[in-house]
Amino acid sequence: MPSNGAARDFVQERADRYLGWLTEACSIPSVATQPEALAKMASWVEDKLQALGASTRRLTIEGAPDVLLAELGSGDRTLLVYDHYDVQPVDPIDLWDSQPFEPEIRDGVFFARGAADNKGDLVARLAGIEAYQELHGPLPTKVKFLIEGEEETGSRSFESLIEKYGSDLQADGCIWEGMGIDHLGRPEFVFGAKGLAYVELTYRGLADDQHSSLAVIAPSPVWHMVEALSTLRSPDGKVLIDGFYDDVVAPTEEDERLLASIPFEEEAERKRLGIGTFVGGATGLDLVRRYMFEPTCNIAGLLAGFTEPNTSKTVLPKEVMAKIDMRLVPNQDPDDVVAKLRRHLDARGFADIDIKRYSNEIPVRSSGSSTVARASIEAAAKVFEQPPSLQPMMIGTGPMYPIASMLGIPTVSPAGVCRPDSNIHAPNENCRVDDFLKIVEYTIGWLDAFASVEE
Amino acid sequence: MPSNGAARDFVQERADRYLGWLTEACSIPSVATQPEALAKMASWVEDKLQALGASTRRLTIEGAPDVLLAELGSGDRTLLVYDHYDVQPVDPIDLWDSQPFEPEIRDGVFFARGAADNKGDLVARLAGIEAYQELHGPLPTKVKFLIEGEEETGSRSFESLIEKYGSDLQADGCIWEGMGIDHLGRPEFVFGAKGLAYVELTYRGLADDQHSSLAVIAPSPVWHMVEALSTLRSPDGKVLIDGFYDDVVAPTEEDERLLASIPFEEEAERKRLGIGTFVGGATGLDLVRRYMFEPTCNIAGLLAGFTEPNTSKTVLPKEVMAKIDMRLVPNQDPDDVVAKLRRHLDARGFADIDIKRYSNEIPVRSSGSSTVARASIEAAAKVFEQPPSLQPMMIGTGPMYPIASMLGIPTVSPAGVCRPDSNIHAPNENCRVDDFLKIVEYTIGWLDAFASVEE
Repeated sequence: MPSNGAARDFVQERADRYLGWLTEACSIPSVATQPEALAKMASWVEDKLQALGASTRRLTIEGAPDVLLAELGSGDRTLLVYDHYDVQPVDPIDLWDSQPFEPEIRDGVFFARGAADNKGDLVARLAGIEAYQELHGPLPTKVKFLIEGEEETGSRSFESLIEKYGSDLQADGCIWEGMGIDHLGRPEFVFGAKGLAYVELTYRGLADDQHSSLAVIAPSPVWHMVEALSTLRSPDGKVLIDGFYDDVVAPTEEDERLLASIPFEEEAERKRLGIGTFVGGATGLDLVRRYMFEPTCNIAGLLAGFTEPNTSKTVLPKEVMAKIDMRLVPNQDPDDVVAKLRRHLDARGFADIDIKRYSNEIPVRSSGSSTVARASIEAAAKVFEQPPSLQPMMIGTGPMYPIASMLGIPTVSPAGVCRPDSNIHAPNENCRVDDFLKIVEYTIGWLDAFASVEE
Repeated sequence: MPSNGAARDFVQERADRYLGWLTEACSIPSVATQPEALAKMASWVEDKLQALGASTRRLTIEGAPDVLLAELGSGDRTLLVYDHYDVQPVDPIDLWDSQPFEPEIRDGVFFARGAADNKGDLVARLAGIEAYQELHGPLPTKVKFLIEGEEETGSRSFESLIEKYGSDLQADGCIWEGMGIDHLGRPEFVFGAKGLAYVELTYRGLADDQHSSLAVIAPSPVWHMVEALSTLRSPDGKVLIDGFYDDVVAPTEEDERLLASIPFEEEAERKRLGIGTFVGGATGLDLVRRYMFEPTCNIAGLLAGFTEPNTSKTVLPKEVMAKIDMRLVPNQDPDDVVAKLRRHLDARGFADIDIKRYSNEIPVRSSGSSTVARASIEAAAKVFEQPPSLQPMMIGTGPMYPIASMLGIPTVSPAGVCRPDSNIHAPNENCRVDDFLKIVEYTIGWLDAFASVEE
């Protein structure tokens, strides 16, 4: 058991106070479609930061929710902490056991939209700052919080923000939220992230919906889309878009070493997912390698015609929509991948299918041995009973590219409140109360570690 | 111009009265999901029939809306008239230019759900009876109206009804509503109908929706369904379900003669549908033959994951649903076709996809030279300027099988108010006011023709 007594005791004493903050934060429905709630959430975070003594600014990009930049503390080094205050939509709402924006603790688990992604982390960091100040006094390092409100819709303005405000964001290391605690209780650390190209394919092939008796002579837009989709991916998960893998970089030897050390509880994960086998029947190291280093082509949504349950309507739908998200790995480029998708469809008779782009994130790698990476790992050893899980790549995405690549700041995504069963982006999102308090405690330690770890 | 002066003048004088009836009927939202409206509609029809002097009964099958059986008139022959008082759902509601249950006449066209399918026909027949009585006195033949409320959901109880009440339904001929007036103004007559097997395919392959980053290792239920669907049909419209065509009977020589006489305005139809070519590039006689004698496999609905327009959510959906309607031709059997679909899916690794059945209608043929067929065609010649369009098969379906095959009553589906641009089963359903009044006039003549045509 690590020895971190004073901080742990202090956090336990303040547990109700910090859970109260989390409850407040998760009661605000800050989804992309609710600009008022986004604004309210930004103000809530701003107030909290100011109460901690931070000077705050609103960074603005037209059409995007305000981004908060807060600065506090002083020291030789500057730590940039990235979080986001927006959350995913809540549907399907009827699958939630409690209201998504009325947080509820059941059996030591805190349920609410945003609990794990990532208000839990954000609030834990704020609480950690307060606890540090009360326990030890002034912060030992300069800390900049960069908190955006557009992450869940793909951080569309983040690159513009970095271009406009990059000089204000310079730091010696960046903590970029997103990782959590694995099945075995091991704190996770990642040094890179997959990219994302999200597109909506739509095809309208008829002037109007028709009685389905006409399907015998009128070409069906829905079949046309099914035919197009079926050319994009093989059943074993291989993406068939022409040239899709051209720029994929194979894992390095160091990557392979990290992969071999990553604990992956196949049976627990299979059970949680409710599946018999993983994609392509992968197991062992092959499975972990796919997990980290394979790109995907996923159908996130599909809609056509009459969809009411338990009843029938004989219609030939005039149009069809498919939302496709492609997770990319270094050095795939989202623009290039979408261009390849366009050419792939055109070459097969699907030039009539329209492609509308949403999210666009470039995959990125950072160093696993930077100051910020080593400080984060070192501080975790005092809080977590388990050894760290060090991962070369995060399977999710986030705007790590502008910070790590455009600004060149070493970046690490350290342990947060998210567990594999936290249901992020899904009904009944949650974090464990114990984990939340542990991340508060961890934050106290990483401020000292970052200030003192050797170059 | 046919000479039918007295009847025509009388109907014109009564136009407002009969359009008033149609407005009343189409103001009642008698869709399957609204049992109160269905009951109200049944009472409305019953009241109208009683006012015409009919004796009425409610035929009941548990779980189904009441079926009305009305008898009026007397004579050597008995004519059975089949209609239905239910209508299709109205969605997508936002594509209607006026409220579906607030009928509106614009530029001589009557817009409302049910205007063409088939309250327009039903009301025109009732109006025709009244007009006959006022013009000529007692009806020259016995007429039985059989009016059900379950047609739009596949007439699931109709076979049971025929088994239970068959002896009360005996007649010398059956008029079965459903046909209309073609592009050229020709009254249409059909002597058979396609069948229908409607199934809902569902597959739940994950315990919960997942963040789409997991799509790299967790098998996607949506891709699984797309893969299954893509095995069902080739792009040229051929259904690939194993054994699907085994029982299909080729058109006879008489069928081919009728096919060759069917006017089919390809260019007008292409323009109306908004398409470049018909399925498989068919044209001419080949196109008409497909239209009448080819079965289909249509995707009426498709739903998975996140479907809100103009935004993105990166989710790996846990489940997917596809509604499939298959139009069948003699001698395909819906039970057999669904069993073949099951075996087809099982044989290709899709045994995990669930099949739920909805409508089930057996394809049927009747004679084109029966008393009722000849009377209907003869009466039309006095009303319509154009020669009749005689079709061996209706491309839609209806419960013709129990009447024509189980009861053995010669059946014809004669001209009604429906035009190719009537948008049945779609937004802005309509019938032309002139057509409605013409069908009232036509009804007057067919009562006499049925009573007097030679055996």
